Amino acid sequence: MADPTSTPTRATVPDSQLAAWRSFLEAHARVIEVLSRELREEADLPLSWYDVLVHLSEAPGDQLRMQELADAVLLSKSGLTRLIDRMQREGLVNRSACPDDRRGTYAQLTTAGRDRLRDAAPTHLRGVRDHFADLFDDDEARQLDALLRRVAEGRTTG
Amino acid sequence: MADPTSTPTRATVPDSQLAAWRSFLEAHARVIEVLSRELREEADLPLSWYDVLVHLSEAPGDQLRMQELADAVLLSKSGLTRLIDRMQREGLVNRSACPDDRRGTYAQLTTAGRDRLRDAAPTHLRGVRDHFADLFDDDEARQLDALLRRVAEGRTTG
Repeated sequence: MADPTSTPTRATVPDSQLAAWRSFLEAHARVIEVLSRELREEADLPLSWYDVLVHLSEAPGDQLRMQELADAVLLSKSGLTRLIDRMQREGLVNRSACPDDRRGTYAQLTTAGRDRLRDAAPTHLRGVRDHFADLFDDDEARQLDALLRRVAEGRTTG
Repeated sequence: MADPTSTPTRATVPDSQLAAWRSFLEAHARVIEVLSRELREEADLPLSWYDVLVHLSEAPGDQLRMQELADAVLLSKSGLTRLIDRMQREGLVNRSACPDDRRGTYAQLTTAGRDRLRDAAPTHLRGVRDHFADLFDDDEARQLDALLRRVAEGRTTG
């Protein structure tokens, strides 16, 4: 969050940057809310589950160590263990011990998980296009990408 | 979520827009993670609690109907009732019935809640400056704001 507008120290963030910060938070909240609703309504799948399924499907052998998965997902980082418990009960992932690391656990995509991902992908992708990608022409998308890379990588201006 | 890179329908989102989408998600995940960690370490306060405290502090009479609060906060929309339960147990908010709406409930900031917000605000605001605002000059911030407003408002290009 959170909009620091009325805090006593507001003056330390200039207006233009504060407006961008607010838009950034509102844009994320809105697009995630819409994508979540569409995926739930059309594919009966929470967006956080989709996020896990995609990352497992892209990994070698359809599996990742739990820590690797936690680093990869962009939602549900904090509640990942319970999330995987629920997905396992629905048969979408399996867990297994890492053979070369006795403290480690793998999460692995099941066939049912892969089917579920395939069914849900068109809804999700259409949502990304309609509620994000189609709002920008190529130049704008490249601008936006370059600016947001700085935040993603913690780089300073330049 | 979730990067749709490897889904069969990838071709429907052009590369530049897909890169911007990925940067957008990664930027949000990173900045929220860093701000959360700093706020927890320096002010012992979850970022979702800070979000609630800020919105109550900006409301008339330091109170909002639960539904208004759910619309206002940018984190924890889905788990808000339980979040307010926990904050009430720590004395940071009170609940009261709306006098003009027997189905409604207000959440109201307490004095302890206001003190907690005041203590945490400098940490949060420094984080917003260091990990977001300072990465952009004024022109860049205005550009970023204009592009992200489209997403926040669900507008098409132009």
